[in-house]
Amino acid sequence: MLLHLSTWSEIGQYLERSQTIIIPIGSNEQHGPTGLLGTDWMCPEIIAREAHKNADILVAPTFNIGMAQHHLAFPGTLSLRPSTFIAAIGDWVRSLAAHGFEKILFLNGHGGNVASIEAAFSELYAEASFARRPAGFALKLVNWWDLDGVTDLAREQFPTGHGAHATPSEIAVTQWAYPEAIKEAHYSPQIADSGPIREAHDFRARYPDGRMGSDPAQATPEKGRALVMLAAESLVREVAAFSHEHTPT
Amino acid sequence: MLLHLSTWSEIGQYLERSQTIIIPIGSNEQHGPTGLLGTDWMCPEIIAREAHKNADILVAPTFNIGMAQHHLAFPGTLSLRPSTFIAAIGDWVRSLAAHGFEKILFLNGHGGNVASIEAAFSELYAEASFARRPAGFALKLVNWWDLDGVTDLAREQFPTGHGAHATPSEIAVTQWAYPEAIKEAHYSPQIADSGPIREAHDFRARYPDGRMGSDPAQATPEKGRALVMLAAESLVREVAAFSHEHTPT
Amino acid sequence: MLLHLSTWSEIGQYLERSQTIIIPIGSNEQHGPTGLLGTDWMCPEIIAREAHKNADILVAPTFNIGMAQHHLAFPGTLSLRPSTFIAAIGDWVRSLAAHGFEKILFLNGHGGNVASIEAAFSELYAEASFARRPAGFALKLVNWWDLDGVTDLAREQFPTGHGAHATPSEIAVTQWAYPEAIKEAHYSPQIADSGPIREAHDFRARYPDGRMGSDPAQATPEKGRALVMLAAESLVREVAAFSHEHTPT
Amino acid sequence: MLLHLSTWSEIGQYLERSQTIIIPIGSNEQHGPTGLLGTDWMCPEIIAREAHKNADILVAPTFNIGMAQHHLAFPGTLSLRPSTFIAAIGDWVRSLAAHGFEKILFLNGHGGNVASIEAAFSELYAEASFARRPAGFALKLVNWWDLDGVTDLAREQFPTGHGAHATPSEIAVTQWAYPEAIKEAHYSPQIADSGPIREAHDFRARYPDGRMGSDPAQATPEKGRALVMLAAESLVREVAAFSHEHTPT
Amino acid sequence: MLLHLSTWSEIGQYLERSQTIIIPIGSNEQHGPTGLLGTDWMCPEIIAREAHKNADILVAPTFNIGMAQHHLAFPGTLSLRPSTFIAAIGDWVRSLAAHGFEKILFLNGHGGNVASIEAAFSELYAEASFARRPAGFALKLVNWWDLDGVTDLAREQFPTGHGAHATPSEIAVTQWAYPEAIKEAHYSPQIADSGPIREAHDFRARYPDGRMGSDPAQATPEKGRALVMLAAESLVREVAAFSHEHTPT
Amino acid sequence: MLLHLSTWSEIGQYLERSQTIIIPIGSNEQHGPTGLLGTDWMCPEIIAREAHKNADILVAPTFNIGMAQHHLAFPGTLSLRPSTFIAAIGDWVRSLAAHGFEKILFLNGHGGNVASIEAAFSELYAEASFARRPAGFALKLVNWWDLDGVTDLAREQFPTGHGAHATPSEIAVTQWAYPEAIKEAHYSPQIADSGPIREAHDFRARYPDGRMGSDPAQATPEKGRALVMLAAESLVREVAAFSHEHTPT
Repeated sequence: MLLHLSTWSEIGQYLERSQTIIIPIGSNEQHGPTGLLGTDWMCPEIIAREAHKNADILVAPTFNIGMAQHHLAFPGTLSLRPSTFIAAIGDWVRSLAAHGFEKILFLNGHGGNVASIEAAFSELYAEASFARRPAGFALKLVNWWDLDGVTDLAREQFPTGHGAHATPSEIAVTQWAYPEAIKEAHYSPQIADSGPIREAHDFRARYPDGRMGSDPAQATPEKGRALVMLAAESLVREVAAFSHEHTPT
Repeated sequence: MLLHLSTWSEIGQYLERSQTIIIPIGSNEQHGPTGLLGTDWMCPEIIAREAHKNADILVAPTFNIGMAQHHLAFPGTLSLRPSTFIAAIGDWVRSLAAHGFEKILFLNGHGGNVASIEAAFSELYAEASFARRPAGFALKLVNWWDLDGVTDLAREQFPTGHGAHATPSEIAVTQWAYPEAIKEAHYSPQIADSGPIREAHDFRARYPDGRMGSDPAQATPEKGRALVMLAAESLVREVAAFSHEHTPT
Repeated sequence: MLLHLSTWSEIGQYLERSQTIIIPIGSNEQHGPTGLLGTDWMCPEIIAREAHKNADILVAPTFNIGMAQHHLAFPGTLSLRPSTFIAAIGDWVRSLAAHGFEKILFLNGHGGNVASIEAAFSELYAEASFARRPAGFALKLVNWWDLDGVTDLAREQFPTGHGAHATPSEIAVTQWAYPEAIKEAHYSPQIADSGPIREAHDFRARYPDGRMGSDPAQATPEKGRALVMLAAESLVREVAAFSHEHTPT
Repeated sequence: MLLHLSTWSEIGQYLERSQTIIIPIGSNEQHGPTGLLGTDWMCPEIIAREAHKNADILVAPTFNIGMAQHHLAFPGTLSLRPSTFIAAIGDWVRSLAAHGFEKILFLNGHGGNVASIEAAFSELYAEASFARRPAGFALKLVNWWDLDGVTDLAREQFPTGHGAHATPSEIAVTQWAYPEAIKEAHYSPQIADSGPIREAHDFRARYPDGRMGSDPAQATPEKGRALVMLAAESLVREVAAFSHEHTPT
Repeated sequence: MLLHLSTWSEIGQYLERSQTIIIPIGSNEQHGPTGLLGTDWMCPEIIAREAHKNADILVAPTFNIGMAQHHLAFPGTLSLRPSTFIAAIGDWVRSLAAHGFEKILFLNGHGGNVASIEAAFSELYAEASFARRPAGFALKLVNWWDLDGVTDLAREQFPTGHGAHATPSEIAVTQWAYPEAIKEAHYSPQIADSGPIREAHDFRARYPDGRMGSDPAQATPEKGRALVMLAAESLVREVAAFSHEHTPT
Repeated sequence: MLLHLSTWSEIGQYLERSQTIIIPIGSNEQHGPTGLLGTDWMCPEIIAREAHKNADILVAPTFNIGMAQHHLAFPGTLSLRPSTFIAAIGDWVRSLAAHGFEKILFLNGHGGNVASIEAAFSELYAEASFARRPAGFALKLVNWWDLDGVTDLAREQFPTGHGAHATPSEIAVTQWAYPEAIKEAHYSPQIADSGPIREAHDFRARYPDGRMGSDPAQATPEKGRALVMLAAESLVREVAAFSHEHTPT
């Protein structure tokens, strides 16, 4: 089910048979000369919505703006500060927990989100820990590229030049889902440089076209389709395992 | 242009000819027995994306979770607290202002958002006001039903039972855009009660099926189409007027 | 009763017969060439204290600094940011709720406060809504010019040039209450311009003497007296209705 | 001058001859069986307004709600948390500093405010200190009972039973200013107990009628008048000294 | 016991016989030409650890960074803003209260911390006060120089030139504990000036070598040893009295 | 150099030859039946202070309380919430940056800190990114067990039962440094279970004696000495590389 296309009573009925929900979460940020600004929130959205076609899982609206401060020197990037991001994730989770959701899985599309999402989880758990009571919910962060088999497939598809930002795998996923928005460019160098991530000014000086270690020219819609299908299947298994996990008391 | 389907350099080029951007903003909350949980963020998204087909305007990703604390007693509602909402709107605007956007129009789909969005604007302006400097940007809030002609059309379409929440006009808009997700129910009473809005517990006691003053059974996809087309045209004119507005110095 | 001139045990006795309290709330900000900086907090204070002479109502101390960031380019303006204002209103309400007040009416004197006060109400209600419990109190915002009959009287007194800021009606109210502080000036133009409200720098450029759409020269203490007497009577009825309103359970 | 009874241009003119302002600050909290809830904000207001009659000094509106968490178990007490109080003091000072005030004197009427006000000063200074720039303003906290000669007079007036809360001196000041609100009660014991101050529950258990170490029965309007006159004279000298103090560069 | 050199089960056993804990708290800031940057957190740490050798008391890890914004113009100073300091003290106390500690004594080494620590106490107590429940813990702030007899001894040791910052007594304490880190300098003037404390820029202009009113040349390790031994003995008595203090119910 | 045993002028001199500083950072939390509560802040402190004996590096005071919410069900654990931790790290960095430090290395001793420290870095960088200016400093997080060669040595020393919490390597380090505080216990099972980390209640139910996957009985002071010596050497090289790293402009 897609939560946003459901009514409140449909969600009430779903809660009687499952207390698990998936939140696609990403970022809206530059992705090099050809990557779409929405890449990082569209990838988990694409995968989660593909997965919901074949399984009784519930997909929340997409959390589309994340922690992308290092990309702010490129037009079109939108970023929350970590403190804002933590507060917003907190209110999403508190809303869902109030309805009785007990297993909340964030399917993430942006490496730069990981630390802040985990900090947000700890901020939420800490409310229960300081009060010496159970939290009542379990939170799980899964990057879509860490879903079972996905990184292996990407490595096979892109043995060199996968890199860390504006990767051919994420661009392939969006090419498959949004073929009308495939862009082309001449890359120079073909494989971009790598290095540390700091503030936006430093980032743009190090990575002038926005890529980190990647050669996005290798992306094709077909490779994207294969990644999505595999990821969607793995996600269904991941959700099932999480749903069935027993919480100690 | 849709920002999320663009590259950073395309946005850079857009900024050379316009410094105006539209942010669809809404809420994900119960909308009565048949209204979709996503209604309030989907309506402005639908209208803004329709508008962009015929005009050189730029549409940001949709800000999909707003201030809906009063709906939290109905499953599926997601809400930010006003303080979180204000912080998040702040970071969206600061991101866009950093890129050089000077006119930022929020196309809103949820009445409950209005106070918090205006408070967020004041919070942002206050940074400049305390520092005795110009803000560098102008912010505008436009509810989609306040776009030129839209309320008149809705009144004509729904002379009685329009109401204030889960209205036939907003449901008609989503019916047109998502015909696969049209729901049916028996309404009792046909036109729901009206009254004040307080916390979620009070809201659910007053409005047991979630509607306020409305009879959504009157919605049809065709009425929705007419509303969207009119709203989209009005939005283009609204954006043009805002873009050309002169800021005193 | 005036809370600040009472003892704690007198308030304890009042709480046995009523759980309603009125908080005059306003702003301290420029009001054009002749309006007093305290106009917006003095008006509701004047009206509430007049009302208490003839009714068993309780008036709290005046919340005298509000959201006036747009007036900061004029000397003497004091403003809270919305986030500070929301936090402070929150602590006022939490204090009163701890004593058992269940109906808290803010009598407001400043249009610029409205969004932040409503956001503050939602912030307070959200604590209960996220916790799935009743709030235990109801909050009501009433602008003094929206009290029954007041706008009609003002329109009759000032058929043209009432405007939106530094209005003759609010200045008349303070002239009646503080005749020793009546100021005079030559207005140019006689009726000030209107337009949008943004940050302080923009505001002063648009409205050089601080007025918006108004001709305060029409104010007289007599007109002020009539406004106060009518508003005070209406307030008593408003408070009675709010007190008797039934909360659903 | 009283700021709230002035226009913005009158304050603009004042700023050309002085950059000093006085803010009466206090608390609204229980003051024993006969003390008024407004005692702690009315005392500095009374003294500052008395002082302004004979000197060219500027008095801001009164900051009437302070840090009184320990009194919350008595009806009528209003309290800000320290964090809220610090934020609000911050915005008051930032507003005044934006207008060019360089010497801001808080005339305080509540011992429980002292720590939070000083913390607020440090919070404000820290903005400049972290940025390695001058603050541009100097802040001074003066309790009215610490004004030159006042404690000596109070000790002479009340050699025993002055105590620490609901003292005869503060009650005498309000008796002189608000003779219509003089209350009477039988005190038992005549001089209240003393001890530590913790949370409200603990406070009420220790000090059942709200007094700490005091015998307010000794208060008279005449003693109050003497205290006010002396304090007002001392305040004028204090303000002059502060105004003339040289800031090193 | 030293908490950091204990296991969790040892602390569990301690809690069965005592619910009192000591937190050495200070600041890391410039202390004149010869004082160590760690002086203000090392002094209470030295005294508390000395005390624990002869008594069954529990000493927490040292809270080593405090409120030192005014010293930030001197290299090596580390400061928290008051708001950060209050938040951090809050989490320390909430952690300890969750374990069952009921008496938490902060042994302080920095005058500049006092206001913020007391504000932090009020912030913590306010949680209980707004909720109308007992706090469950009592907090006590003791400056090491206020321990019984210590100021008398310091006055005897240093009849002139003790001053307020970089005092010979605190430097003597660190000389005794860290003889390998005794520094020497020529002081000019021999006794430093005194005056107000504001932001860092102002502080450095007033007190060019960092001292306030002191002549640290009088410090010797022997004097430090006497101060530590006396303070440690007094601390043990202070802790015992605090432990045995009865809380009213 | 150890910052806390230096004077401000010594730090001023150091800044002329280096702008790099090391902050040992950890946590104070349960470490199983025999591990010390201070383990995670003492390990990086031990290693950094060992390193400073043979190199011209500067070591700040130890940041001793981190993010340990999951350990709060065990007595003696102290934790900051992530939001508090982020604020405090922010003020440490802002203090150091104000003095001119440009390379700030956090030597971390607690896995649970990683996400919050990285979020804190992003929060700091974001200030510069939103303002479109260089940050002026680079931040680096290094876990001591990730220093060159350390994990290899630990794997060699403890081929099985190293685990993830209360590991024999960290306990060995503290055994070497604090031989007087070596504890003994019977472990059951010898190697503890592993699993996810959530709130404190869940943690204690899963890991009843506090260990995760480890057999601390293998720790010896000699193994600890080897780990410290190797880590200290690696740290010196790490600091040198970081110091010499060129920042793009």
